Amino acid sequence: MSASRPALNVAMIGYQFMGRAHSNAWRQVRPFFDVPLDPVMKVVCGRSAEGAAEAADRLGWQESSDSWRDVIARDDIDVIDICTPGDSHAEIAIAAAEAGKVVFCEKPLANNLAEAEQMLAAVQAAGVINMLCHNYRRAPAVGLAKRMIDAGEIGDIHHYRGVYLQDWIVDPEAPRVWRLEKAKAGSGALGDIASHSLDLARFLVGEVAEVSGLLKTFVDERPLEDGSGRGAVDVDDAALSLVRFESGAIGSIEGSRFCPGRKNYNRFEINGSKGSLAFDLERMNELEVYTEAGPDSGFRTILATDEQHPFVEGWWPPGHVLGYEHTFTHTVFDLLRGIERGESPRPNFEDGVRNQEVLDAIERSSESRQWEKV
Amino acid sequence: MSASRPALNVAMIGYQFMGRAHSNAWRQVRPFFDVPLDPVMKVVCGRSAEGAAEAADRLGWQESSDSWRDVIARDDIDVIDICTPGDSHAEIAIAAAEAGKVVFCEKPLANNLAEAEQMLAAVQAAGVINMLCHNYRRAPAVGLAKRMIDAGEIGDIHHYRGVYLQDWIVDPEAPRVWRLEKAKAGSGALGDIASHSLDLARFLVGEVAEVSGLLKTFVDERPLEDGSGRGAVDVDDAALSLVRFESGAIGSIEGSRFCPGRKNYNRFEINGSKGSLAFDLERMNELEVYTEAGPDSGFRTILATDEQHPFVEGWWPPGHVLGYEHTFTHTVFDLLRGIERGESPRPNFEDGVRNQEVLDAIERSSESRQWEKV
Amino acid sequence: MSASRPALNVAMIGYQFMGRAHSNAWRQVRPFFDVPLDPVMKVVCGRSAEGAAEAADRLGWQESSDSWRDVIARDDIDVIDICTPGDSHAEIAIAAAEAGKVVFCEKPLANNLAEAEQMLAAVQAAGVINMLCHNYRRAPAVGLAKRMIDAGEIGDIHHYRGVYLQDWIVDPEAPRVWRLEKAKAGSGALGDIASHSLDLARFLVGEVAEVSGLLKTFVDERPLEDGSGRGAVDVDDAALSLVRFESGAIGSIEGSRFCPGRKNYNRFEINGSKGSLAFDLERMNELEVYTEAGPDSGFRTILATDEQHPFVEGWWPPGHVLGYEHTFTHTVFDLLRGIERGESPRPNFEDGVRNQEVLDAIERSSESRQWEKV
Amino acid sequence: MSASRPALNVAMIGYQFMGRAHSNAWRQVRPFFDVPLDPVMKVVCGRSAEGAAEAADRLGWQESSDSWRDVIARDDIDVIDICTPGDSHAEIAIAAAEAGKVVFCEKPLANNLAEAEQMLAAVQAAGVINMLCHNYRRAPAVGLAKRMIDAGEIGDIHHYRGVYLQDWIVDPEAPRVWRLEKAKAGSGALGDIASHSLDLARFLVGEVAEVSGLLKTFVDERPLEDGSGRGAVDVDDAALSLVRFESGAIGSIEGSRFCPGRKNYNRFEINGSKGSLAFDLERMNELEVYTEAGPDSGFRTILATDEQHPFVEGWWPPGHVLGYEHTFTHTVFDLLRGIERGESPRPNFEDGVRNQEVLDAIERSSESRQWEKV
Repeated sequence: MSASRPALNVAMIGYQFMGRAHSNAWRQVRPFFDVPLDPVMKVVCGRSAEGAAEAADRLGWQESSDSWRDVIARDDIDVIDICTPGDSHAEIAIAAAEAGKVVFCEKPLANNLAEAEQMLAAVQAAGVINMLCHNYRRAPAVGLAKRMIDAGEIGDIHHYRGVYLQDWIVDPEAPRVWRLEKAKAGSGALGDIASHSLDLARFLVGEVAEVSGLLKTFVDERPLEDGSGRGAVDVDDAALSLVRFESGAIGSIEGSRFCPGRKNYNRFEINGSKGSLAFDLERMNELEVYTEAGPDSGFRTILATDEQHPFVEGWWPPGHVLGYEHTFTHTVFDLLRGIERGESPRPNFEDGVRNQEVLDAIERSSESRQWEKV
Repeated sequence: MSASRPALNVAMIGYQFMGRAHSNAWRQVRPFFDVPLDPVMKVVCGRSAEGAAEAADRLGWQESSDSWRDVIARDDIDVIDICTPGDSHAEIAIAAAEAGKVVFCEKPLANNLAEAEQMLAAVQAAGVINMLCHNYRRAPAVGLAKRMIDAGEIGDIHHYRGVYLQDWIVDPEAPRVWRLEKAKAGSGALGDIASHSLDLARFLVGEVAEVSGLLKTFVDERPLEDGSGRGAVDVDDAALSLVRFESGAIGSIEGSRFCPGRKNYNRFEINGSKGSLAFDLERMNELEVYTEAGPDSGFRTILATDEQHPFVEGWWPPGHVLGYEHTFTHTVFDLLRGIERGESPRPNFEDGVRNQEVLDAIERSSESRQWEKV
Repeated sequence: MSASRPALNVAMIGYQFMGRAHSNAWRQVRPFFDVPLDPVMKVVCGRSAEGAAEAADRLGWQESSDSWRDVIARDDIDVIDICTPGDSHAEIAIAAAEAGKVVFCEKPLANNLAEAEQMLAAVQAAGVINMLCHNYRRAPAVGLAKRMIDAGEIGDIHHYRGVYLQDWIVDPEAPRVWRLEKAKAGSGALGDIASHSLDLARFLVGEVAEVSGLLKTFVDERPLEDGSGRGAVDVDDAALSLVRFESGAIGSIEGSRFCPGRKNYNRFEINGSKGSLAFDLERMNELEVYTEAGPDSGFRTILATDEQHPFVEGWWPPGHVLGYEHTFTHTVFDLLRGIERGESPRPNFEDGVRNQEVLDAIERSSESRQWEKV
Repeated sequence: MSASRPALNVAMIGYQFMGRAHSNAWRQVRPFFDVPLDPVMKVVCGRSAEGAAEAADRLGWQESSDSWRDVIARDDIDVIDICTPGDSHAEIAIAAAEAGKVVFCEKPLANNLAEAEQMLAAVQAAGVINMLCHNYRRAPAVGLAKRMIDAGEIGDIHHYRGVYLQDWIVDPEAPRVWRLEKAKAGSGALGDIASHSLDLARFLVGEVAEVSGLLKTFVDERPLEDGSGRGAVDVDDAALSLVRFESGAIGSIEGSRFCPGRKNYNRFEINGSKGSLAFDLERMNELEVYTEAGPDSGFRTILATDEQHPFVEGWWPPGHVLGYEHTFTHTVFDLLRGIERGESPRPNFEDGVRNQEVLDAIERSSESRQWEKV
């Protein structure tokens, strides 16, 4: 390891799906990017000592632990990376902040607005660097969209149209997993996937002023995973909303897990006064762009794999596509740069609270049947 | 002309864009379809005698007239085909019904609900065959979607997601044409294009129970066409809505004229319990279909040009695509079959009223800022 | 009919698939284009008097005949439109030329090079206007490609890559129809569909200097249509070739009827020193264009439906797509303009001979197993 | 590191583009796959000691060296991974084989057939495991294509149509890099990219019997990289061929670096008696499949990201796409499994020789202007 870069010791709490993606990011960021700090994958932590040890071996962490409190208490740990389900984010993050650690938290920040606000207060009180992992902001094609918008290439934005569609519970006999329990997951499609579309809306268009929401549960009872009968589904299967942005733009944001054939269809279209942009995560290396005028104009497909596109300089020549997990590597790279600069990179816990405020307004609106201010 | 089929004398009122499309339909239906009646293009009518004469020559009508009342009064006319702007539909249609004519009316049925209801009352009182021309129902790919839904191939419908996007007034200096005046056009994107998406929703999914609407005018003043200054735009540039169907399905319907690069992007996606369908008018010969399960499934693109697809048997071999105006020819073919059977084909004036009720609810909701029942 | 335009009396020989397409063109050209001459659909001719009479009624011809010689002998006929199978083109066209008629001939000009040369000699000797109907040159997207090439937008051409793929005989039990008999059809995929790709190559890139060909018959015996047993297939099922253009460009031209799922896949891609173009007949309203440089470039999809695109001014507003048969209407429009100017529009019989020379070289090369000069 | 799996010490020679991709594969294979052996990234080797040391630090190798002969001589090295340009493959591979090492060699196996045959003889004589890295065989979508073909889903294959198109030297002022020198690169587009399309053809369709080839150099002189003037380009800019497979299938294989807008367009289409398949590396997570019959059939897009698709079980849930470098990780995973089983996985050095024989025949054919047997 190079003597010229200081080391940064990382501890990761949780090692399931998100833990695998975050581990990969910590492992890959150094070979591909000019990191200002050398991340050391120090310890991985989970409720099961055995599981954590196995994860450490598999994912490349030096040590394992079954106590996140012990880990946070260690002096040699610089960063706490939180990959647990949303119902434990607040407790861990607040403790980490109080211990003076950098806090890196997988989305959603929390399962409800109150917790999110407490988390923000904690990092602000402690003055620690914090970041929320909404990884899709750092797909190169999304970064390119942001750059084009900021450069005025599509003019003033009139419309945002975002959907995040999946199909994994369209079968009514699919089991009642933890993501379908409000106590654990906070909400359903709303917080899990519509929240991604919302985060991209805020990243690309700006703040949301008010919403009209519609939450729907198509199947309200499902088989329990342990085969002991059926359990209630108390989260939404689909979440639809109309939104008014502070800028005057209008749009819609939707998440649904009931769309056969859509596996990971996180799509947006943005229409401005001078052009349009469209993105689809299932073709995440492409950005559809319309910026010309005249009869010979048309949407062009930019293969966002040029070294001049965001984050691509670390990878391969043009036309060599990137995958899902690269977005996490880019996020960690920006976290490292933020730590060096002493700034909390966007999206940070303030963004997490703001996102939660909008999700909260959508839920309120679905109840009140009228527009709700954020 | 074959002796075995009775003739049917048609008079068309209005000869602009829609008049050209309807004329083409009357001209083309007989060479391509086994019509039960031989339509005779008897007379075309417009406010200008000279213009009507020129249109007759160009479009193939035997005679021309500058008085629609005279035309309706003629005994030898069987069908009145109304292609004028929406503000005159009611007066002409009611007179035609009272004269016992078949009434074929271009959409929208009327510029407001009250007029639409009067028109329906008139055709019902007179007992005349009536039909509303919402031509996109009869694109073969749309007809195929309907057939697949009716056959249960996508199961129970959960979602409808419809947009109709254009870009012809995104330039704020585009002139204030009649389509931007409420007195003439009734509404903007709502009645002009969102209405198509709504009609397809009702055709494919069913009746709408309630809506949350959002109308927006981005540019509220534009240059007058005669160069005499600027005039107010008092219709919507964009119309967004969330909808609840009577069946329990949910969805969204949107029309906008502010989407650069979208020329005629009338697109819907429907998700059911067993599959999904998607259609885009800019690729009107294709239907995207997902009806399988399992890892090797995927959306397949059906080129809806097989002789077994709706209306294709009249045209060409597989892979030989149809164009925009064919949808009108199909509509006229079904009108002829309806006349022979003594039935008003769908969509008829009842559908027109029902469509207008939903559009009306969207307008009310945009004002009240809460959900409105249809 | 307008007094200001002279009438032009047309006789059509043959009324099957191509006869239907040509009839439509004669019927539609006047309502949609500013024709210099008013075409009169005078007489349709076929071997069966009854069939011809039925075709006249259905397709809109004033009279019918069962003798093409009688029709050619009539003084009141100006144009002979030949829609019969290729084995009768030469005899009819030569007689028509000798009678001083305009000769409009469906492709292929003839079933072999010798006949084609005789036909060219006949029209040259008679000094009559002649035109070959290779309709795809006049799809608006193809015309736009030609315009962009001529304007230098893609620079010097390096590559042409053309395929025309269908699937209608991939089933070995599909019957041995006339298109599979050399005596009637001349060749198989080569003359029927690869010839279209070749004609587009010559239109867009230039003359072919030499070829390396490969003809293949996958199924050499099929059920006879009358059920009386099996008959030999003595034409090619697929025809592949490498080509060198006179300009130095290189490429490939292929036709196959053995490509499941390809219904009418007439596709080309052209790469120049400054850009690229791609077209697919199954999406005939679109042209894929790459003309920029730099990281944010990409292929853009031009929806070739703007009034400034070739032939579109006659039809509908942007985004309203055209269909297969429109290409014939455009061809007839240009024939009318050619007649008025006294010029034989391209492609004419000279092009037909040139096309046949290349097809002939491909056949020779397939035999000799070496490159053959055209 | 788990005690239960034996370690496997790897040395990599060359650390440029391919070295980065191979390093990544060695680093990533263990976290994502159940490897039978634990690869240890022991030493990286290059001509410059400093460069090799920097590469070791960056790419994660324990040691570095500037002598590949020293590395091969080490007893503790099990695998020699060759990532140098093609002109040094033979010397290194033969030495490695003689030293009893597993030899893993980046494509092309060699710059000409004679060298390739010597390499094959060496590994056969030494009895060492050998593998050629043609990474695209192990894109999941390509593996799925292979599986579907082997299962008979598209029937007997009639056509293979492969192109590999790039655009990086279309500018005539692009410098004369080593890839444009025959002495270093062996050939141009032929060996560099057409060879990939050929390898896929052999993988999916079978052995090639004979070819008709056409090599073309559009720009035969370019600026030298050091600014000292201009140098000759003595390799092909584009390589086209027609091919006959031993099975009776026919097809075409092409590589070109002169196709503006095509960045890494490695595309094939395969047509069989029962269906068709199409793949494009720029959308490498997708496979286009046509396997049905009937009017409602169509090409479907399989997003090859299901855990049942080849190699996907190691990665993410459905809809989470993979990138370019994953194909190398899959290749290394299969190499590890081959080592454990004592078998040289395909493609191995025999495949390398066979590929080279076909490329050689294409070159010969381009000279002789006639078909050449492989």
